[in-house]
Amino acid sequence: MKPPKFAVHKRAATRLDAGHPWVFANELQAPARDLPPGGVVDVTAVDGRFIGRGYANPNSLIAVRICTRSKAQHLDLPGFWAARLRQALELRQALYPGQTAWRWTHGESDGVPGLVLDRYNDVVAAQFTTLGMEQRRDIVLEAIHDVLPLRGGVLRNDVRVRELEGLEQGRGVWFGEVPESLTIHEGPVAYQIAPLGGQKTGHFFDQRDNRAFAARLCPGKRVLDVYANTGGWGLHALYAGAERVTFIDKSAEACAAIERNLARGDLAERAEVLCAEGRKALIELVTHGARFGAVVLDPPAFAKTKKAAGSALKGYQDINALGMQLVEPGGFLFTSTCSFHVFEDRFLQAVSQAARDTGKDLRLIRRGEQAADHPVLPEMPESRYLKSYAFQVLPQG
Amino acid sequence: MKPPKFAVHKRAATRLDAGHPWVFANELQAPARDLPPGGVVDVTAVDGRFIGRGYANPNSLIAVRICTRSKAQHLDLPGFWAARLRQALELRQALYPGQTAWRWTHGESDGVPGLVLDRYNDVVAAQFTTLGMEQRRDIVLEAIHDVLPLRGGVLRNDVRVRELEGLEQGRGVWFGEVPESLTIHEGPVAYQIAPLGGQKTGHFFDQRDNRAFAARLCPGKRVLDVYANTGGWGLHALYAGAERVTFIDKSAEACAAIERNLARGDLAERAEVLCAEGRKALIELVTHGARFGAVVLDPPAFAKTKKAAGSALKGYQDINALGMQLVEPGGFLFTSTCSFHVFEDRFLQAVSQAARDTGKDLRLIRRGEQAADHPVLPEMPESRYLKSYAFQVLPQG
Repeated sequence: MKPPKFAVHKRAATRLDAGHPWVFANELQAPARDLPPGGVVDVTAVDGRFIGRGYANPNSLIAVRICTRSKAQHLDLPGFWAARLRQALELRQALYPGQTAWRWTHGESDGVPGLVLDRYNDVVAAQFTTLGMEQRRDIVLEAIHDVLPLRGGVLRNDVRVRELEGLEQGRGVWFGEVPESLTIHEGPVAYQIAPLGGQKTGHFFDQRDNRAFAARLCPGKRVLDVYANTGGWGLHALYAGAERVTFIDKSAEACAAIERNLARGDLAERAEVLCAEGRKALIELVTHGARFGAVVLDPPAFAKTKKAAGSALKGYQDINALGMQLVEPGGFLFTSTCSFHVFEDRFLQAVSQAARDTGKDLRLIRRGEQAADHPVLPEMPESRYLKSYAFQVLPQG
Repeated sequence: MKPPKFAVHKRAATRLDAGHPWVFANELQAPARDLPPGGVVDVTAVDGRFIGRGYANPNSLIAVRICTRSKAQHLDLPGFWAARLRQALELRQALYPGQTAWRWTHGESDGVPGLVLDRYNDVVAAQFTTLGMEQRRDIVLEAIHDVLPLRGGVLRNDVRVRELEGLEQGRGVWFGEVPESLTIHEGPVAYQIAPLGGQKTGHFFDQRDNRAFAARLCPGKRVLDVYANTGGWGLHALYAGAERVTFIDKSAEACAAIERNLARGDLAERAEVLCAEGRKALIELVTHGARFGAVVLDPPAFAKTKKAAGSALKGYQDINALGMQLVEPGGFLFTSTCSFHVFEDRFLQAVSQAARDTGKDLRLIRRGEQAADHPVLPEMPESRYLKSYAFQVLPQG
């Protein structure tokens, strides 16, 4: 049976032809309510020319997500997904030979819209973020068993984005056996992961390269790691020879995870973990005249929507002004934003303004992004979200 | 004696206050011809407020280069330059512990406008690109002796940019003893450098991190390195375990340097060196249906001026379309531009267009820049020039 056809307006066709995978509801000629919920559709130009094949959701702003540009592909067969998983697997194996923890698929960027898989050794943590993928869970499972048989899998569907697709949040065992806790390695650093634990017990692979670069500059230094989450930046610094690291996170669960990771590496004596809100802690440290050889600011996204970008920038400027005041002359500031809506130029302007306001002179020594297991589709700016910068902080002179 | 004061228009003052170090001739209130050639001047706002102190050139479009924001600094004393060299040295030592080859100062970005120093073990190669620095050559030499005593130094003033400052090109021994040839190390790779040889016998440190990333993806692959210069990309790939590398450069001098570097590493059996123009060689390889696991395109700047950016983009699109046709399905394209005037977005658009034209599907897996020993002043876009991208190349499907 051939999938039903849905035509899109001319401007949308141009964008889709260029490689963008999303059809917005208002770009369809027919009313979006005619779309089959979760079903496969063919997207065409007004003149009937085939553009791509995807799955639909009549109740989402993103009405269709194109999964293939080929009419020969069948989205309801495990083989299609298995081929995509295999392609993604081969990239990770090339990128991280011998390693067993990485993001296996990053949704659209790996040709699997709505499906995020993180591999933690022999366990996979899955996020199904769209109706179309939710309906294909069993097919995806079959594909996983085919491509990389694992001991167990968890559903980490506790993400708000599911609600935009009319799906409930939730988490639980998906298949097989899942240990309560396991240890993964990122370079020299060991992390304890709780596959079924709260949000602050998983792992963000995306800062991998940026953490490794920062660690190279931390030997012998006292380091401040704010918005520390499970402690990635500071742990890398400690393994690389930092004298001492102060971790700050407001979540008790995150602080407990940091403590476990420190204990695992026998590093507790060179660290302190403060359970406190990041900005408040920064203000207090500035007030007390504290100084560090390196300061890390890796906050959660301040802007989750386009509308919030302006106030987010003020927030970034604020914490960066505080952070750079805590850096010793010649020391380093590692500062990130994971807000897609905060663009690079504006973020850098905010950091520059913070430098002027605090009498600092900045040298940008590295611009980093999300790691290579979070690929980017060149024609889909939304797939590029993480910006991470290394600055040397000098007194003005 | 206090330096003479020169006031700048309001818009210039704003840019300079933000941290940009250049005063253009048309931004001065007084005629530029009143500036002391190479002499120290104080730049002020219209109301006399001190902005910064720098050196002047009445015959350059860039009339003043600000070197300090402090009235307490003396540009004609070695101590000023020694402090800048020491600051820059400390950054390199932190970045590259145990290594002895890096860019020591990167002009404006290290607070020493017009002075580029590359360290090759116990030899320094210097570029004095402005009249103001040319006049302070002896002071700089004193500062070098003070901060990092070296065995010898060469002047590599064979750069066209000197002519904009009314200076002649030239090269020669600057001080001490200079060997005809020496060996430097970049990670695992050994390069032979001829400090006094032609342009294609030096070393470009700026691609250091990008070469290292690419090499990780080359084990077992056949690699094509076009515009190879002294062979950096391909050598890294060979050391990392590439099956075979084909180097292409149109300069006989560069090809000889590659051969020497291959011999030095006992790698000649796994490589071939073709002395040919890059684009022509690419066309021929495409015509013959050649395929590689990875293709490197690292051409010289196609756009040296703003005006040339448009045609440069066509040139980049052209060679990238050729390059990606040579990549096996799932293989990699490492593509760079060192044209400041070709901005990132436009370059990526050109590469995307090349992908559409050749039926390829690209995943951007890394965005790289100039290495950290080529720092960037956040408020000086001109100090950020190198863009380097790693793409996985897939067939469209």
